[in-house]
Amino acid sequence: MDSSIKLSEEKVFKDPVHGYIHVRDKLIWDLIGTREFQRLRRIKQLGTTYLTFHGAEHSRFSHSLGVYEIVRKIIDEVFEGRPEWNADERLLSLCAALLHDLGHGPFSHSFEKVFRLDHENFTKQIILGDTEVNEVLTFISDDFPQKVAEVIQKTYHDKLVISLISSQIDADRMDYLQRDAYFTGVSYGHFDMQRIMRVMRPREDHVVFKWSGMHAVEDYIMSRYQMYWQVYFHPVTRSAEVILTKILQRVKALYKLGYSFKKEPLHFQSLFEEKVTLADYLKLDEPVILYYFHMWEEEDDPILCDLCHRFMNRNLFKYVEFDPAQQYKVLRELEDLFRDAGIDPEYYLAIDSSSDLPYDFYRPGEEEERLPIHLLMPNGELSELSRESAIVQAISGKRRTDHKLYYPKDLLQRMSGENKIAERILSILHRF
Amino acid sequence: MDSSIKLSEEKVFKDPVHGYIHVRDKLIWDLIGTREFQRLRRIKQLGTTYLTFHGAEHSRFSHSLGVYEIVRKIIDEVFEGRPEWNADERLLSLCAALLHDLGHGPFSHSFEKVFRLDHENFTKQIILGDTEVNEVLTFISDDFPQKVAEVIQKTYHDKLVISLISSQIDADRMDYLQRDAYFTGVSYGHFDMQRIMRVMRPREDHVVFKWSGMHAVEDYIMSRYQMYWQVYFHPVTRSAEVILTKILQRVKALYKLGYSFKKEPLHFQSLFEEKVTLADYLKLDEPVILYYFHMWEEEDDPILCDLCHRFMNRNLFKYVEFDPAQQYKVLRELEDLFRDAGIDPEYYLAIDSSSDLPYDFYRPGEEEERLPIHLLMPNGELSELSRESAIVQAISGKRRTDHKLYYPKDLLQRMSGENKIAERILSILHRF
Amino acid sequence: MDSSIKLSEEKVFKDPVHGYIHVRDKLIWDLIGTREFQRLRRIKQLGTTYLTFHGAEHSRFSHSLGVYEIVRKIIDEVFEGRPEWNADERLLSLCAALLHDLGHGPFSHSFEKVFRLDHENFTKQIILGDTEVNEVLTFISDDFPQKVAEVIQKTYHDKLVISLISSQIDADRMDYLQRDAYFTGVSYGHFDMQRIMRVMRPREDHVVFKWSGMHAVEDYIMSRYQMYWQVYFHPVTRSAEVILTKILQRVKALYKLGYSFKKEPLHFQSLFEEKVTLADYLKLDEPVILYYFHMWEEEDDPILCDLCHRFMNRNLFKYVEFDPAQQYKVLRELEDLFRDAGIDPEYYLAIDSSSDLPYDFYRPGEEEERLPIHLLMPNGELSELSRESAIVQAISGKRRTDHKLYYPKDLLQRMSGENKIAERILSILHRF
Amino acid sequence: MDSSIKLSEEKVFKDPVHGYIHVRDKLIWDLIGTREFQRLRRIKQLGTTYLTFHGAEHSRFSHSLGVYEIVRKIIDEVFEGRPEWNADERLLSLCAALLHDLGHGPFSHSFEKVFRLDHENFTKQIILGDTEVNEVLTFISDDFPQKVAEVIQKTYHDKLVISLISSQIDADRMDYLQRDAYFTGVSYGHFDMQRIMRVMRPREDHVVFKWSGMHAVEDYIMSRYQMYWQVYFHPVTRSAEVILTKILQRVKALYKLGYSFKKEPLHFQSLFEEKVTLADYLKLDEPVILYYFHMWEEEDDPILCDLCHRFMNRNLFKYVEFDPAQQYKVLRELEDLFRDAGIDPEYYLAIDSSSDLPYDFYRPGEEEERLPIHLLMPNGELSELSRESAIVQAISGKRRTDHKLYYPKDLLQRMSGENKIAERILSILHRF
Repeated sequence: MDSSIKLSEEKVFKDPVHGYIHVRDKLIWDLIGTREFQRLRRIKQLGTTYLTFHGAEHSRFSHSLGVYEIVRKIIDEVFEGRPEWNADERLLSLCAALLHDLGHGPFSHSFEKVFRLDHENFTKQIILGDTEVNEVLTFISDDFPQKVAEVIQKTYHDKLVISLISSQIDADRMDYLQRDAYFTGVSYGHFDMQRIMRVMRPREDHVVFKWSGMHAVEDYIMSRYQMYWQVYFHPVTRSAEVILTKILQRVKALYKLGYSFKKEPLHFQSLFEEKVTLADYLKLDEPVILYYFHMWEEEDDPILCDLCHRFMNRNLFKYVEFDPAQQYKVLRELEDLFRDAGIDPEYYLAIDSSSDLPYDFYRPGEEEERLPIHLLMPNGELSELSRESAIVQAISGKRRTDHKLYYPKDLLQRMSGENKIAERILSILHRF
Repeated sequence: MDSSIKLSEEKVFKDPVHGYIHVRDKLIWDLIGTREFQRLRRIKQLGTTYLTFHGAEHSRFSHSLGVYEIVRKIIDEVFEGRPEWNADERLLSLCAALLHDLGHGPFSHSFEKVFRLDHENFTKQIILGDTEVNEVLTFISDDFPQKVAEVIQKTYHDKLVISLISSQIDADRMDYLQRDAYFTGVSYGHFDMQRIMRVMRPREDHVVFKWSGMHAVEDYIMSRYQMYWQVYFHPVTRSAEVILTKILQRVKALYKLGYSFKKEPLHFQSLFEEKVTLADYLKLDEPVILYYFHMWEEEDDPILCDLCHRFMNRNLFKYVEFDPAQQYKVLRELEDLFRDAGIDPEYYLAIDSSSDLPYDFYRPGEEEERLPIHLLMPNGELSELSRESAIVQAISGKRRTDHKLYYPKDLLQRMSGENKIAERILSILHRF
Repeated sequence: MDSSIKLSEEKVFKDPVHGYIHVRDKLIWDLIGTREFQRLRRIKQLGTTYLTFHGAEHSRFSHSLGVYEIVRKIIDEVFEGRPEWNADERLLSLCAALLHDLGHGPFSHSFEKVFRLDHENFTKQIILGDTEVNEVLTFISDDFPQKVAEVIQKTYHDKLVISLISSQIDADRMDYLQRDAYFTGVSYGHFDMQRIMRVMRPREDHVVFKWSGMHAVEDYIMSRYQMYWQVYFHPVTRSAEVILTKILQRVKALYKLGYSFKKEPLHFQSLFEEKVTLADYLKLDEPVILYYFHMWEEEDDPILCDLCHRFMNRNLFKYVEFDPAQQYKVLRELEDLFRDAGIDPEYYLAIDSSSDLPYDFYRPGEEEERLPIHLLMPNGELSELSRESAIVQAISGKRRTDHKLYYPKDLLQRMSGENKIAERILSILHRF
Repeated sequence: MDSSIKLSEEKVFKDPVHGYIHVRDKLIWDLIGTREFQRLRRIKQLGTTYLTFHGAEHSRFSHSLGVYEIVRKIIDEVFEGRPEWNADERLLSLCAALLHDLGHGPFSHSFEKVFRLDHENFTKQIILGDTEVNEVLTFISDDFPQKVAEVIQKTYHDKLVISLISSQIDADRMDYLQRDAYFTGVSYGHFDMQRIMRVMRPREDHVVFKWSGMHAVEDYIMSRYQMYWQVYFHPVTRSAEVILTKILQRVKALYKLGYSFKKEPLHFQSLFEEKVTLADYLKLDEPVILYYFHMWEEEDDPILCDLCHRFMNRNLFKYVEFDPAQQYKVLRELEDLFRDAGIDPEYYLAIDSSSDLPYDFYRPGEEEERLPIHLLMPNGELSELSRESAIVQAISGKRRTDHKLYYPKDLLQRMSGENKIAERILSILHRF
């Protein structure tokens, strides 16, 4: 297919964040219509966050369209015509933007942890495998799917293209901060994206930002910081995540033990065996998972049944602050007491740690080499953001970590009165 | 329980439409925590609309909280202290507002049509039956559940309370217009609710509106009109609705014919038999339905399989305008041609009609007696809205109906070339 | 000057309504810098409306930039490349958009009435006369100022260009509805301009609108209707307007009578004589007028002094509804009573009539031939809006007029008690 | 007057920032109607900022209403009924909030500098002097005006009342950040005021904030930081401020020299003499000042004439970054060169320094003892904000200062070519 084929009439999607999503390229239109892309409608953008912020029911489908739209605007309205920008990379960039989250499964975080999956690997498989997406991409050229996969995997030769969707300030983050703020309704997450886009300039291996837009970039960094701690790491969301993880651990353990399920967990078989094919994976989405949780509310295993009931009806665990260094011994004591009280600590006592590095300058050789944000100074030179911005410098490279200990307060309270151990547990937790 | 029990600390939910939802009454807090209310998280407010407006993924859970919040504000900030308002009705009004949609099932419209269900009846059953909601309500008094049900059914003796949630301008509509506008992202649906609330005045049997707020009320009527035609009756949404209905009709027909399903449709059994108990009903939600649609994509029956595939992957029917009076004969002809082409018109040719009456004055004796909106004039008298507002008068009582004929254009196009009948069908439809 | 001269770097103005105003053409940048254009900063967009809606303190400067920006977007983002659009008219259209209100003076409405001025005539004079604006425009070509003036006067040969800024749905109206809504804070005035712009299509002699955008156009018509009655014709604003007009009438009358002003009204001399030169006119702005009102608060003439005091300190007249047909005789009676009470009815009793035609189809031969809005139907034909839209049809061609009688209630109340006539007046007005 | 007198009907002002301003107390209504309060309509909230951000044309009138509304909401919706809050202070707090800026004059910053005025002193004089405001306040009690003045001057005995309008997070700042963001249109200035208000708790000598709202407070601090550097200290605004100051200096110098003005600057006489009475001061507002600037554009003194022309037509000075420590000698050199070129450096070369301390903890004994923000921790103790918030800690106590050197680039460029000194000056400035 000639990559320049345009639709006879531009199509638009009404979008609450960007106003409209504009599609002129037939290729993009066809990709949106594939079953693998439509599947993203059935996967929430923010996993369990809707149990904390009831508005956060939006899907990865709308986020993916948003990332595409931002990249389209940057290319068509800012980069076009600049000598540093290679116009041939336009369609590749748009496809990578649209498809970057394609391999996400339901409640990715917990599933990846328990079943050792990797959504990035599935993204690659969907793009390169026997799928409608692959079929559409191949119309452009035989090696086009490979190129799209490389951009998403950050191995593509043109680092400028990669930096549009994977850097400390990219289309992915700019969309999700604004979108998640919009749907949760929080007042964080606002920054002047229009200004940031206007000061973006293509350079050989990454996007840089004109110095005159520094404050808009600062504001973006601050928005990101607030969204992480106010929304993404919200302790109630993490409680739901803990319960979800425990459900998956429990059902996997039961399976390994040869437990006889009333309702055969067909969709989970290959997960349990850790032999998930692409076809298996594509059948998973959140309605399927929720269907099973419904079913398991009626299983005989009391732990599975209780945990599913908790998740479905938002009867979550409570939490206390936890200091792993100081309180390790108390944790051991609590585990023993839980066992004494007849509550399995494996499933009912959990530490969850969240950690964020709001912005980082370049540290060669470290595990995750984060590319810093560069400002294009009036004299034409580049300067790393934290050298120019006092406020970014103040938080730069400072990792903040938060540990919480989750437990079923309602259960312990119901037990106490007749059960001294439960009372003891509560009094220990009360001192945290 | 003493109805005045307050939470030790006010609880809030962040809400994108109202800022915050405030809960001080323990009763309300407990109702929100019931499994029947949490179930509303798994039922979309706008059914299939998300296939047209991708942002419309919000649930009936958030709408129900919104209606509650509006009624709470009207009572606590406007009615409180006024002699016409009976403060004893406060908690009853709040409960009715919160629970008014409790009986909604997944994709209500299609399900109710095919399986002859009535969500209002289920709302009543949930409130009066053996449920967590009933248990919480009964704490207030033995007859409290009955009262709540009566308000929702519009049979309660105090018509003022009813009019708060069921009239041509009520908390239900004010929430959904704004909420649906917010999540779809359309620019309709905005009106000055704060002003409307400020001019509401309690009268013996309904809420009236001070004349000084007439323009805000007009604006609400216009918003409502636009939302109906731009969002609720959007032809693409209706196409998805048509396919959904056809899936249900097909699966029911197969069941009646004794078709052997690969995957037994357990959750549908009582629906097919039209003997749905409350327990059966409460197990239904959208994830469950989508799970079956997934399964049925792999059934042998080609119609069921195709329709489910269409719904899941948004491969919808196209439409033409249809005039039932003029084009009835052509429809018959098309049905015959469909049969000749080997396409079952029962499932692949459908008329959908939408009809709206934006505002109506009072017409005694008509099927649905709509209470008109009354303005409280400066001289203390009441005057019906359309008598004061030229713009409302212009559209008052004027029903607008729209008929569309839906058909699988993609299928016919694929067939044509080798199939003259398909070509013929397309050329007929092209003339509509 | 080559009309295509671009700035080395695009300039932007932050604008609350449009996000940013973008300027790439040196000509536009230079026009904005002229003293005649900067003068618009000192003339409020909504005259006396800030005395009703305190946020409405915005100037004609920001509105003019907004109209420019809308026309720029229509041309650069929608019309560009379409065969029906003549790209050579781009800069002319932008200049006409930017300069269309250039001749407005302070509180135009009252000044024009009392001193028989015509702001459109001054716009023409500024564009063609010895001004910085003329100098800048002449750089393009000697006849360019003339062309700009013709577009604004609607006499230019290319009617399509005219319709961009002067029709029933043009850039001027689209900006002011949104801008005035933003600054007053009212919830009317919103419509989906992005959609309207997207469906605009150039035709030989006017802009038409694709049928698919009809509802956005309807919404615009309704916004316009609401803004007229809620904001522009607000009775309190009109009260301030009445007082302003009376001040000007009084000062003119005093001048004609040879009254000796403590502070010589130099700026008004040529106004009184009705021989206003362009140089005189350009010296007038709202600060100058307010300076005189300040001064006149200290004049000996009690009427002038009182009226200025009322205007400066927002001590306005009250009003009653007035029916000219029915209440003409009572008005005569009131005038006599005012005289008997020692209050000059010439200055203290005033009828103000506001009248609006929300939308009109074409009526050949009528005084003001309003070009109707045409929809471009799917079949390629044009259809007049009110034939397609039930709601527009309902209000089309229906003029609504409102008359109010203004009077100094505070003065009459202070007088009554000892003055039977004042009491009589109040009791008559009370019956209106 | 009984302080509890309520209006028969609540009055509202439509406000773009707060939705509505609600007034129930007759006292507040009467204060708003006084001529001293109405005068605030004629003084811009942000002085010369409208020359940078054209939307910033809003007045101190609307800001004052906004501060009142915030304090009203805090008291009526959060503090009411709490034992730590003394309900008798309600009306006093509302009056102080409404009147806190009453003494501001036109372009306060420059006027205070050149004529050694102090707006706080005038606020006090207006409240205690022979004014309509004083008359209204005295209705409550003879010592009520004194109390209001004390709250505004921060000498009142109840420090809690003072902290509502004067602290590092008070109603004054919360209104202006949001209002200035709204009118300029920038995307900074947003924070969750609703949440901040909800977590405010009265304590003996100040307002504290529940720990659960810490992130909203952080966000407010960041908004404040961004607004200072993006809006309040914008270099273009400061350029206009420099010119304004130079105009005042020049006119004062001319007066001292006995210069004969064509148009006698009557309103400035007492300013020049530094003997400004309250009556003189109240006659000053921005229209009056702009009237004189208009006049002075026609004075013979070339400096005054040129500076006024620059201000009225926004022909501002350009700037370079300036380092006082390093570049002091170059500045001396420049001054000499200016003199050699025939340009008076006194009026055409100016350093402007802006400096901000975004947040400060308590430092006893320092010049301005800023009360820190205290969080109310879950254990009931207070903790200073920067001890709990990493991000606030990072910027706490860190003053940021910015120096710029302003000069008339246009003039120098016009001169260069024939004038070697002008060229020399430009080449030196180019190296800054």
